[in-house]
Amino acid sequence: MTSRSGIITLLTDFGYEDEYVGVMKGVILCRYASARIVDISHGIAPQHIEQAAAILESSYLYFPRNSVHLIVVDPGVGTDRNILLLEAADHFFIAPDNGILSPLLHCPEKVRALYRLNSPSVAGSSTTFHGRDIMAPAAAELAAGGAPADMGQPVALSGCVIFALPGPLLEKDLVRGEVTGVDHFGNIITSIKVSDLGRLQHPLRVEIGGLYVEKIHTCYGDVAPLTLVALINSRGKLEIARNKGNAADFVACRMGDPVVVRQLS
Amino acid sequence: MTSRSGIITLLTDFGYEDEYVGVMKGVILCRYASARIVDISHGIAPQHIEQAAAILESSYLYFPRNSVHLIVVDPGVGTDRNILLLEAADHFFIAPDNGILSPLLHCPEKVRALYRLNSPSVAGSSTTFHGRDIMAPAAAELAAGGAPADMGQPVALSGCVIFALPGPLLEKDLVRGEVTGVDHFGNIITSIKVSDLGRLQHPLRVEIGGLYVEKIHTCYGDVAPLTLVALINSRGKLEIARNKGNAADFVACRMGDPVVVRQLS
Amino acid sequence: MTSRSGIITLLTDFGYEDEYVGVMKGVILCRYASARIVDISHGIAPQHIEQAAAILESSYLYFPRNSVHLIVVDPGVGTDRNILLLEAADHFFIAPDNGILSPLLHCPEKVRALYRLNSPSVAGSSTTFHGRDIMAPAAAELAAGGAPADMGQPVALSGCVIFALPGPLLEKDLVRGEVTGVDHFGNIITSIKVSDLGRLQHPLRVEIGGLYVEKIHTCYGDVAPLTLVALINSRGKLEIARNKGNAADFVACRMGDPVVVRQLS
Repeated sequence: MTSRSGIITLLTDFGYEDEYVGVMKGVILCRYASARIVDISHGIAPQHIEQAAAILESSYLYFPRNSVHLIVVDPGVGTDRNILLLEAADHFFIAPDNGILSPLLHCPEKVRALYRLNSPSVAGSSTTFHGRDIMAPAAAELAAGGAPADMGQPVALSGCVIFALPGPLLEKDLVRGEVTGVDHFGNIITSIKVSDLGRLQHPLRVEIGGLYVEKIHTCYGDVAPLTLVALINSRGKLEIARNKGNAADFVACRMGDPVVVRQLS
Repeated sequence: MTSRSGIITLLTDFGYEDEYVGVMKGVILCRYASARIVDISHGIAPQHIEQAAAILESSYLYFPRNSVHLIVVDPGVGTDRNILLLEAADHFFIAPDNGILSPLLHCPEKVRALYRLNSPSVAGSSTTFHGRDIMAPAAAELAAGGAPADMGQPVALSGCVIFALPGPLLEKDLVRGEVTGVDHFGNIITSIKVSDLGRLQHPLRVEIGGLYVEKIHTCYGDVAPLTLVALINSRGKLEIARNKGNAADFVACRMGDPVVVRQLS
Repeated sequence: MTSRSGIITLLTDFGYEDEYVGVMKGVILCRYASARIVDISHGIAPQHIEQAAAILESSYLYFPRNSVHLIVVDPGVGTDRNILLLEAADHFFIAPDNGILSPLLHCPEKVRALYRLNSPSVAGSSTTFHGRDIMAPAAAELAAGGAPADMGQPVALSGCVIFALPGPLLEKDLVRGEVTGVDHFGNIITSIKVSDLGRLQHPLRVEIGGLYVEKIHTCYGDVAPLTLVALINSRGKLEIARNKGNAADFVACRMGDPVVVRQLS
């Protein structure tokens, strides 16, 4: 049997005003009293599956192996969509089958097992909060050592929702990507990975929103305050920031806007 | 002696910018090192006692029995208002005597014991942060197994602040309720309980803000995206939502606005 | 050897949308599985070192002795700024050398030891997230009992960034201070300590933003709703609040605005 770390992480779009997150923790603690529950974020934009997927991809590997990651961004709650239990990359994941798990399902070699959770017909189960009524109990059972095979039915990868991850276009002397997110600091995150840039000759220029940002720097402090700076961020992605300022407000960019890295010589 | 779950939940209007919540946790851990502290919400609108009461009502039952629930929404801090210690429904509650505990105090049959906390004359105790100086220490003592009777003086239910919970009006072929809240998703929560609707004949129509919403559905995905949908939410209340959208912004409704469910035939 | 409380507190400007805080917790739990992690706040305004310093000063003493306080407000991340490990006032602190620790470094008598952390050349270490790659691992090692002297090199207090804490001016019959912050409730916090007022004869008048506030009261409820009230807050500082309202919005004041307390007789 695979052991467990005892940790359950939570990633939702529930926000911080309501009781929804606290209630899920109560449900977990009722079933697995010594669970260690860690919040990843509850600030995902409502129903923003792609944002949740990106944050999941950037976070799960920093936790002890055999942790359980519960992701509840679930606009289809109460419909006949499945709830998945995924064992992959030495971790466990419970999430609706709506594409959130794409970063893992895109790599079949990482997937060890994939199930759809059994639907308990629990008295009093709601049709609008499966995070509380189905997924949190399952996460508790799993983190306490429950066997995935006892909790659901095997499903094929090909039957699951997997969305295309935005990959950059590699051309002769440039890389075309897009804006995939903006973080709390207003740093603009792009789809361009550090490995995509290896084939280009320096010096490079980043083009975004009609602006040019010269050179890929190492850190924010490499440029003067309130100056735009391009760098490789902690997720290994190209990021456009503004030293001690907010790049997204300054550039006025949106998700999906084009970003080009061009070789100047 | 009643045992304890070791869990202390926190529900406040302190927000997430200041040190207030963290400091209460420090105070608890100084007195009861193995306390398990769970945040319900710190996003209650400042001084909004009714909102806190609704969230308390929707959350405490999901925690292990004999948990301690600490609620600090306390506009009267430093005045001569009492601080209550309530034992009810197999849980413990510590809160100012300002109506927050109304959902429990309305049901005398659930109340096992009710005390006003002794006021410690602690050196350095503030007159503006009893959450830190009086209530958190009491919650720690209680969660660690302290006896309520040693911590305060019995008080009568009739001497406590209890506010009227908004109950719907049941008429011949309709139910009149009101908007009691809006959650993080913009879902509009009403005072109408699922049990209030049992006497009406389907089909039903919900009227709110001059708009008609036909039929009580099961889940958000029952209607097309950006369409209004009425359903019974996870609190067992009638809710008006907008599939993948924000109903409260769309309807432009406010707390207390009338909501009518009408029998059409 | 000094013992440890096992507690690690976190204070950052990371906000609540991204995975940054959760990832630091994962990193800590990988290295010290039984760490007890407590959030102080992640709502510090981006790069606002003074705000973080004020919140640190108001919070650490409420935690058990020998706790580890990790503060990551780090606009200079990736530059050659040091990361400090401070042992002071029976607590441990890890933070960038940018002035955040000023409330402690201002009191040399409290400082027991001061080191700059060794820079690990970890494969995959980022230049933009030392909270994750350097400081969280150090906090875990320290909280698990690691010896500070093994983790860094001693540095002199005189070599560290310490900024002037805003102190009030004491004149014959008045005290001049300034606005140092606004909390979640809109309460206006000033640089004037309760001890600064002891030399003045009552009655006193507070002057802020062209408005007069008569008398230093005890609590918010001492005045009518929506009335301004001056009192000594839970940090021991003069505060101007508005009973059941938002003083900062009403007065329209900003950080650094002058506040005067004048003796009337």
